[in-house]
Amino acid sequence: MTHAFNKLTAEEAAALINHNATVGFSAFTSTAAPKTISKAIAARASAEHAAGRPFQITVLTGASTGPSLDGALVAADAVRKRTPFQSDPVMRKGINDGKVQFVDMHLSRTAPAIRAGHFGKVNWAIVEACAIDPDGTIVLTTSAGITPTIVNQAERVLIELNTYHPAALRGCHDLFEPVYPPHRQPLLVNTPSDRIGSPVLRIPPAKIAGYVECSLPDEVGGFSEPDALTQRIGHNVAEFLVAEIHAGRIPREFLPIQSGVGDTANAVLGAMGQHPEIPVFDMYTEVVQDSAVQLMRAGKLRFASTVALTITPATAQEIYQNLDAYRDRFLIRPEEISNNPEIVRRLGVISMNTAIEADLFGNVNSTHFFGRTLMNGIGGSGDFTRSAWLSIFTCPSTQKGGKISTIVPAVSHVDHVEHDVQIIVTEQGVADLRGKSPSERAAEVIEKCAHPDYQELLRNYVTLGKGAHTPHTLDKIFAFHQAFQTEGDMRKARL
Amino acid sequence: MTHAFNKLTAEEAAALINHNATVGFSAFTSTAAPKTISKAIAARASAEHAAGRPFQITVLTGASTGPSLDGALVAADAVRKRTPFQSDPVMRKGINDGKVQFVDMHLSRTAPAIRAGHFGKVNWAIVEACAIDPDGTIVLTTSAGITPTIVNQAERVLIELNTYHPAALRGCHDLFEPVYPPHRQPLLVNTPSDRIGSPVLRIPPAKIAGYVECSLPDEVGGFSEPDALTQRIGHNVAEFLVAEIHAGRIPREFLPIQSGVGDTANAVLGAMGQHPEIPVFDMYTEVVQDSAVQLMRAGKLRFASTVALTITPATAQEIYQNLDAYRDRFLIRPEEISNNPEIVRRLGVISMNTAIEADLFGNVNSTHFFGRTLMNGIGGSGDFTRSAWLSIFTCPSTQKGGKISTIVPAVSHVDHVEHDVQIIVTEQGVADLRGKSPSERAAEVIEKCAHPDYQELLRNYVTLGKGAHTPHTLDKIFAFHQAFQTEGDMRKARL
Repeated sequence: MTHAFNKLTAEEAAALINHNATVGFSAFTSTAAPKTISKAIAARASAEHAAGRPFQITVLTGASTGPSLDGALVAADAVRKRTPFQSDPVMRKGINDGKVQFVDMHLSRTAPAIRAGHFGKVNWAIVEACAIDPDGTIVLTTSAGITPTIVNQAERVLIELNTYHPAALRGCHDLFEPVYPPHRQPLLVNTPSDRIGSPVLRIPPAKIAGYVECSLPDEVGGFSEPDALTQRIGHNVAEFLVAEIHAGRIPREFLPIQSGVGDTANAVLGAMGQHPEIPVFDMYTEVVQDSAVQLMRAGKLRFASTVALTITPATAQEIYQNLDAYRDRFLIRPEEISNNPEIVRRLGVISMNTAIEADLFGNVNSTHFFGRTLMNGIGGSGDFTRSAWLSIFTCPSTQKGGKISTIVPAVSHVDHVEHDVQIIVTEQGVADLRGKSPSERAAEVIEKCAHPDYQELLRNYVTLGKGAHTPHTLDKIFAFHQAFQTEGDMRKARL
Repeated sequence: MTHAFNKLTAEEAAALINHNATVGFSAFTSTAAPKTISKAIAARASAEHAAGRPFQITVLTGASTGPSLDGALVAADAVRKRTPFQSDPVMRKGINDGKVQFVDMHLSRTAPAIRAGHFGKVNWAIVEACAIDPDGTIVLTTSAGITPTIVNQAERVLIELNTYHPAALRGCHDLFEPVYPPHRQPLLVNTPSDRIGSPVLRIPPAKIAGYVECSLPDEVGGFSEPDALTQRIGHNVAEFLVAEIHAGRIPREFLPIQSGVGDTANAVLGAMGQHPEIPVFDMYTEVVQDSAVQLMRAGKLRFASTVALTITPATAQEIYQNLDAYRDRFLIRPEEISNNPEIVRRLGVISMNTAIEADLFGNVNSTHFFGRTLMNGIGGSGDFTRSAWLSIFTCPSTQKGGKISTIVPAVSHVDHVEHDVQIIVTEQGVADLRGKSPSERAAEVIEKCAHPDYQELLRNYVTLGKGAHTPHTLDKIFAFHQAFQTEGDMRKARL
């Protein structure tokens, strides 16, 4: 179909963006991220700065992006504020150096926050599409993130028409934006494959400032193959789930799975795929990675509702060349729907996310090193964990060759509170915190999950604090962290 | 109506309960709590202990109870495990002394956890009713808590027929228990007054072991009248809400209110009631106190969906004598529905809860003193806060005559994470954390909410930690708390 929208160069598009603009970009785990316009904005920022003029923008996305967006913009010192999630090393450094003000948000709340005006007026939406119709209808690519909301809220829209992604993706999305309260109706997703929205996004033509053409794959890196450690964690999770089926706490037909991003998550999915007693299952999740597509091919994963297809170019090509076979196996939704507690609790999702560290009482840190330094952000882990039927966190019991214990007296930043975390899994074993008091949890976590090098220290910590509901001792609460900071090894904590 | 169930004395009923039993009691903020059977179980425990025999039970309730349940049972050393919430001084001491294992849960998750077997088999449900039909149908009294779930899950049921409450309460409840996932349908509460369940609870007659008669009011204490401090907090909240209407972030028709328990909550509701620019509103909450009934009488509160009518005997009599006038003004629901994130997020609830302490970055402690000692529990505050359209926490800026700052570098226990808390209100002012980074939040909290005595110390703390996303310094993170513990005054913190 032909349309009459302005064809622009990336530089012409970037020239429209002014200093202090608030710009929403389509992007989620680097999928569907505009790449040419963002790099041109970075170049424009550098030129403005060279000319002695200020140029910084607020960047709103669905989640993380690739180096052509977060990386390029921060390298050009072009970002004043950033939300809701990032994983780019240059952006991370900018945030921790205090150059970028980062707002770390639950992903299900990002679109509502934008709609409610927490980030002020949205001046521009810059969105990747694989097709544009004459009436301003676009077909999104590999993720939906906050795209409907930024398009609806923005004053103007720029489209990055990325023909790497086939226009045949039309039909693979389910786009819906709730109305403002108090006039909302239920979100009628009663099974992961239920549709409640539109496969395409209609933009008022007058709002479209133009489009820029490109043909570039998503900047999705590969993942490591599972090693002995992550395989052991995966095995522990799979065995635990099977035991839950036998105990009648997971039904025979199983429950939809949410799985986080990364090597451990891939190993867990791999172990679930291989376990003969785990039945064919669905995912209701925010990220589908290569490992999930492999499970689909193997017949173990029936259907995936996701925000993003975070897949390597090789897997993307495999899907695009066989789109008719894959078309009814997945649905790409906005994160406000995908991560919505209404649907997560209704479906009875089993959530599986990774922890940076977990403490004896079931609090989990997903975001900070030593209470200070941001890694990536909370992402959707809180949305799923709080409303899940069964909430699981995984991590290796140690890091840095044993010098760091991920099981600590108290986490240095709390993202998931003791009231939310049910199961902690390390390569050592599975701690089941359900129905347990803080003292009971501490014993369970120490004996099941902690590395043997740290068990005695952790037992000593609990003994020291006895005589209270939660046996903490504020003077010693970060003894592990302080031992690492001063002596380079948590095993040297004095407890 | 006459029925053929066994009439028992409280002692006969208590004699049915064995050592190690798991017993679910109706009770929520001391409303609808069985009083005679619980005291008889306590007496039975004492007699068993005197005879050298063990006797302890697991106590499941909707939330807190009165002295005749928690107090009496703990005084008799009869409780091994307790969930999900309590506020009784004797129970609190038992928990902090390590005699009672307390599991502090989100109230919306308590019934699902019982159903999923996290507390093992439920042997007995002991429930207060104001009427029993021949077919085993009962009418509940002043709260619904987890009553449908314990009745459905228990092997046997005992009824405490409390004729203090009129049988005319039939029709004031909306009782619904979701089926197990993955076969759930939406909870079709689209406005606070929507009904989705049954006004009565049907118990298979064979399950009913008998009933005990009594006529006793709920053990609900009075509340203090608002003083200058709580009035100031209430005023700040009301002015903030009006400003939100003017800014277009709360619609003209307003949004349903959830309000926590206690004197500050009462003062806030009072201030809302008096503010001419706050329109007539609904509540979608877990507790209706006398202050809400006053607003109903004054025409400011249109409708209240609640788990409990936590009202003094005087207010109860006023309602019971005018039940036809009040009948269509409120609905009593189980906490799994009342606090359900599905409904809270759909309705766009404004949540208002009290904090023990709040930190510079927006984390809130609702449960512990100095990280160790339990006060009451998280209750429903997390259910509402995480899914609210607007989440507000209130507290005075100091306690103990200024020796404790409730605004601290880091809270000593995290119940509500930085990602959830939007607004903090003290008598000093209103901190708006929406769309702000940790550094921006710290400045806002210090300048708007902290007591002047502590502002310089708090600014020093932030300066000390600069050079990270969250400017914490682990060595000084609890300097305020430690100064109080060693010198009796947080103002002596060295920062």
